[in-house]
Amino acid sequence: MMKPMKPTATLLISCPDQKGIIARLSNFVFQHGGNIVDSDHHTDFSVDRFLGRIEWEMDGFALSKAELPAALAEVADPMGLTEARPWQLHFSDELPRVSIWCSRQDHCLLDLLWRHRAGELRAEIPLILSNHKDLEPIAVHFGIPFQHIPLAAGTKAAGEARSLALLAEHRVELVVLAKYMQVLSDDFLRVFPRVMNIHHSFLPAFAGAQPYHQAHARGVKVIGAMAHYVTPELDAGPIIEQEITRVSHRDTVDDLIRKGKDLERMVLARAVRLHLQHRVLTYGNRTVVFE
Amino acid sequence: MMKPMKPTATLLISCPDQKGIIARLSNFVFQHGGNIVDSDHHTDFSVDRFLGRIEWEMDGFALSKAELPAALAEVADPMGLTEARPWQLHFSDELPRVSIWCSRQDHCLLDLLWRHRAGELRAEIPLILSNHKDLEPIAVHFGIPFQHIPLAAGTKAAGEARSLALLAEHRVELVVLAKYMQVLSDDFLRVFPRVMNIHHSFLPAFAGAQPYHQAHARGVKVIGAMAHYVTPELDAGPIIEQEITRVSHRDTVDDLIRKGKDLERMVLARAVRLHLQHRVLTYGNRTVVFE
Amino acid sequence: MMKPMKPTATLLISCPDQKGIIARLSNFVFQHGGNIVDSDHHTDFSVDRFLGRIEWEMDGFALSKAELPAALAEVADPMGLTEARPWQLHFSDELPRVSIWCSRQDHCLLDLLWRHRAGELRAEIPLILSNHKDLEPIAVHFGIPFQHIPLAAGTKAAGEARSLALLAEHRVELVVLAKYMQVLSDDFLRVFPRVMNIHHSFLPAFAGAQPYHQAHARGVKVIGAMAHYVTPELDAGPIIEQEITRVSHRDTVDDLIRKGKDLERMVLARAVRLHLQHRVLTYGNRTVVFE
Amino acid sequence: MMKPMKPTATLLISCPDQKGIIARLSNFVFQHGGNIVDSDHHTDFSVDRFLGRIEWEMDGFALSKAELPAALAEVADPMGLTEARPWQLHFSDELPRVSIWCSRQDHCLLDLLWRHRAGELRAEIPLILSNHKDLEPIAVHFGIPFQHIPLAAGTKAAGEARSLALLAEHRVELVVLAKYMQVLSDDFLRVFPRVMNIHHSFLPAFAGAQPYHQAHARGVKVIGAMAHYVTPELDAGPIIEQEITRVSHRDTVDDLIRKGKDLERMVLARAVRLHLQHRVLTYGNRTVVFE
Repeated sequence: MMKPMKPTATLLISCPDQKGIIARLSNFVFQHGGNIVDSDHHTDFSVDRFLGRIEWEMDGFALSKAELPAALAEVADPMGLTEARPWQLHFSDELPRVSIWCSRQDHCLLDLLWRHRAGELRAEIPLILSNHKDLEPIAVHFGIPFQHIPLAAGTKAAGEARSLALLAEHRVELVVLAKYMQVLSDDFLRVFPRVMNIHHSFLPAFAGAQPYHQAHARGVKVIGAMAHYVTPELDAGPIIEQEITRVSHRDTVDDLIRKGKDLERMVLARAVRLHLQHRVLTYGNRTVVFE
Repeated sequence: MMKPMKPTATLLISCPDQKGIIARLSNFVFQHGGNIVDSDHHTDFSVDRFLGRIEWEMDGFALSKAELPAALAEVADPMGLTEARPWQLHFSDELPRVSIWCSRQDHCLLDLLWRHRAGELRAEIPLILSNHKDLEPIAVHFGIPFQHIPLAAGTKAAGEARSLALLAEHRVELVVLAKYMQVLSDDFLRVFPRVMNIHHSFLPAFAGAQPYHQAHARGVKVIGAMAHYVTPELDAGPIIEQEITRVSHRDTVDDLIRKGKDLERMVLARAVRLHLQHRVLTYGNRTVVFE
Repeated sequence: MMKPMKPTATLLISCPDQKGIIARLSNFVFQHGGNIVDSDHHTDFSVDRFLGRIEWEMDGFALSKAELPAALAEVADPMGLTEARPWQLHFSDELPRVSIWCSRQDHCLLDLLWRHRAGELRAEIPLILSNHKDLEPIAVHFGIPFQHIPLAAGTKAAGEARSLALLAEHRVELVVLAKYMQVLSDDFLRVFPRVMNIHHSFLPAFAGAQPYHQAHARGVKVIGAMAHYVTPELDAGPIIEQEITRVSHRDTVDDLIRKGKDLERMVLARAVRLHLQHRVLTYGNRTVVFE
Repeated sequence: MMKPMKPTATLLISCPDQKGIIARLSNFVFQHGGNIVDSDHHTDFSVDRFLGRIEWEMDGFALSKAELPAALAEVADPMGLTEARPWQLHFSDELPRVSIWCSRQDHCLLDLLWRHRAGELRAEIPLILSNHKDLEPIAVHFGIPFQHIPLAAGTKAAGEARSLALLAEHRVELVVLAKYMQVLSDDFLRVFPRVMNIHHSFLPAFAGAQPYHQAHARGVKVIGAMAHYVTPELDAGPIIEQEITRVSHRDTVDDLIRKGKDLERMVLARAVRLHLQHRVLTYGNRTVVFE
C-alpha cells in the first residue's frame, strides 16, 4: 500500500468498457499538474465493465476540491458516462465518518477501536450503537458516544427509525456491524445502504444460525470468516475479504468459536481498512479490491 | 510422522469411552515385548467415544501376525467391546491394494502415480479404471493395468457389476476417485464402501455441478478442495482433509479451475497418504486424523 | 483441544526411550481410578528420547495432590529415571502465575490481557513490568499491578536484581516478554530461566535490530513472527510457534511493521496458551508441542 | 489474471519517477487504436522509481510489431528515458524460449513439463540440460531434446562454454534451474544473466548446504521455498515468489524434504508462469510482481 504523506484525491470509476478510459483520466490528472501516486484498474470482460482507481497528490494540482467535480464531468461526458454515479471522488484529508454497531461480544469492537487509536484506520468514529448495554464501558473508555437502542418485540421499526436519525445527525457514511447479530430491514437498507458485516463462517456454507455448531457437526478441517457489504438478501452481499484457519478433531465447538473470533477481528479490520482507503468497488454482487 | 524402518503393527480402535483402555492396550503391547513407536488417541466427549491408534515394532514381539487377533480379543473382551469391528489391525509389510479411478482429467492421477513411484505412497496399485480411454497412455507409461468401463445410458448397473468383479479379482481394499466425475450407486457402495473422493470446492458450499463457476459468480476471495470418504448421500461423507488458496477479482473461471487443480492434487495426495498410514478413523460422519 | 470441566492433573515426562513407558504410566493412572482425558507422546528416535503428556481427571482419583509425587516416584524408579526433573506435574485448579513484561508498544500486552479477561488464558497475572511508563494506564485499566524499572546505562544489574526480587515476591512462574525489547543477562536467566519471547521475524533470518527493514530491503514476499523460550544465546532458544503472512512490493516498511504486529500478537497468544495448558516440552534446543 | 484470446503486446517500463508517465503511455496506446486489457504500475518512493506494465490487443492497433519500437522511442525521448533498456516489449504470439536445467531430482522438472503440456506455461522448451543422465527418460517421454553435460573436476569452464553455445544455438531466453544443484560462475552469468532458481528454504535463513537438516536441527515450525533470479552473489538474487508449509516435532528430516518438494514445485511453477506472462520487473535486488 502507498502511504503518501501529502493530501491526495482518489477517483473510483465503474463504467461500461471502452477504449481510452485510462488515457483520458491519466491525461486529465497530468494536464492539471497532478502526480499520480497509485492507480489500478480491472476490466471484467465477462460483463464488459471497466473498474478503476486513481490516486494523486493535491499539492500543486491546478484544480481545487470544489472545482474537481465539474472538470471531471467534462472528461466523462465525451465518454458517454451517463450512468448515475459513474464515479466517486474522495479526499484523504476528509476522514470518512463511521459508526460501529455491536451487541454483546466485544472482540471486533475492541480490535477496531485499538486499530483506530493506533492509526491503522483513518476515520472519524462519532457513534457506537448497540441493542445491549454490555459494551458501553468500552465506548466510554475510548471516549466515543454510545447509544443503546434495544430491540424488543414490536420495537424494531421504531429502533431503526431512531438509528437512521442518529446516522443522519452524525453524518455517518459507513456502518460497520461488528457482531451486531441483528438483521437490518429492507426499509433500513433502502435509506442507508452503506453497511459492512462480518460473518462467522464461509458462506454460502453454514448460512443461518450457529455456523460453528454446523461446522463442527460436519467435521470440517478449516473454518473461515467473511466480511461483506449488506444487501436485503441475507448474507448474500458482495464479499470484501475472507480468511480461514485450520481445525482438527480435537477442536470442540468452543474451540471453533475461539478461533473464529480471531478470524473475525482480522478479516473485519482488513475489510474496514480497505474500504476507508477507497480500495473497494462493487458491481453486481461482486467486488474489485485494489490492493 | 514416524518413519520406522522395521515392520510394525498398527491397531486402530473405536469404542465407547471407559477407563483403562490405553492402559490395557499399551500393557498388552509391553507384556509381549513390543516397542511402541507411535500412539495417539482422542476422546469425543460429546458422544463418549474413544478413538485410538497404536503402532509398535513386530521385531521381538512375542506374537506372530496370525496369533495377534485372538490375543487382542482376550484384551478386548473384558472391556465389553462387543461392537462389530471395534478395531482394525494393519501390518506395515502388507501393502494396501488401491485402485485409482479417473475420467479425462490427468492431474490427480499423475500426481498420485508420481508420488507412488517416489515412495511417498506405500501401496500396491493393481488397477486403474476409467469411463474414458484418454488416460490409458499414462497407465501404460507407469506399467499399471488399465480398464476402460464406459458408462453409456442404461449400462451403469452392468458397468458397476463389472467394476466390482475387477475389484474382487485384484483384491482391492481402497478405491480412490481421482476426478472420476461419476456418482456411485448406493448398491455399489453397499458392496464396496471403502471409497475416497476429491471434491473441487468447499462443501457444503457450491455443491453440485460446476462449483468453480458458482464460486466465481459469488465473488469469493478463497477457493478450496476437500478429500472425503464416499457415502450414499452425495458429497456428504466424512471429511479427511481440506485446503484453500486465495483468489481475487483478477481470476477468471479458468484461473479458478487452474488453481483448483493444484489444490485437488495436493489435498487428495495428503488424504491418500494418511489413509495408507492407517491414520484416519471415521465415526458417524466425522473423522479423526492421527497426524 | 480438550476442555475438561473437572479438575485434572497433567504429567509431562521427558526421558531416554525404553519399552513400557506408556504402559506403566497409563496403568498407574488406571489403577488409581483416574480417567485419562488426553494423552500424547513423541519419541525422537534421532536422540532416543521419549516425550509424553498425560492428563487425567482428579475427581475419583485415589491419590491426593500431596500423595502423587511419591507414588509417581515408585513408578519411575524401576524405569531408572534418575535424571533431574524427569517429569513435571501440574494441576488445572492451580493457575500458573505469569508476569508480562513490555516496553512502549501496546499491541501484545493488550491482546494478552484481553484474552485473559475473555477466559482464553487460564493464569494469574500478578505483575506487569516495564522499562517505560507508557503502558501503565493499560495495567491500571485491567487492575494489574505495574512496576516501572528503568534501564539507564549502568543500572541494568540493579534493575535485574530488583526484577528478580519482584518475581520471587509474586511467586511468578513464567515471564512473557511482550515486545520488551531488552536483552536479559545470562545471570538473570540462570536465576529465572522460564522466559518466553516474541520475535518479529523469521529467525535465523534477519536476526538483530530492525528485522522489518532488513526484510524490506531483501524484497521478501512473506514475513513471519516466532515465539520462543529465551536462552543465553540471543534469539536462539527453542521455538514454540511461528506464523507468516504474505507481503508484496506495495508494502512499505510501515506496512510490514503493521502486518507484523498482527502476527506478533497472534503467535505470542498461541504460544502462551499452549504453555499454560502444559502442552510444550523442551529438550535440547527443540520443543514438542502436544496440540 | 487476464486471459485475452487475441494477440497482445506487453510493455514493461522501469525509469526514474516523473509526472505523466501513465498519461503518455496510455495515450500512446489509445491514439493508435489499442485496447488496453491490463495495466498496472508501482512507484517505489524510497528510490523514486516508476515501474509499470501495460498490455493491449494488437488487433486493430495502428502500428505493426516492427514499427512499435521506433514509435515508442518518440514517446520516451521527451521523458528523457536515456537509461539503457528503460523498457521491454513482448508479444503474446511470440513464445519465450526456455531451457530447463536439472540434476537427479525429478519433481520440479516433471511438474513444469506437465504444466507446459496442460497449457499453463506458454513457452517453447527447446532444451533440457543436466549434469547427470538420470532424467533423460523424462525428456524423451515429453519429446524434448536432452543434453548431458557432466561437471567433473576441472571441466566446469568447458561445460559452461558448451552450455552457452547450446543456449545460443537454441535461442534460449530464460534458463530455469529446476533443482540443478550447481553454482553458475560469474563468467557464465555475465554472458547469460536470465536465470531463475528454486531454493529449498527461506533465505537468508539456512543458506548453504542441507537447509532441511539445518531447519530440523533448529526445530522450526514452518519451512519454505523461494524462487529467485540468479546473481553472482549466491542465493541473494531478487525474490519472485515464496511459500511456506507448517511442520511439527513429528516431522523427520525426510518429512521436511518430502514437504519441501511440494513447496518447491508449486513455487517454481508460479514464478515461471509470472515470468512468462511478463509480470516480473526487477530493480536493484527487488522485484515488482504485477499479479
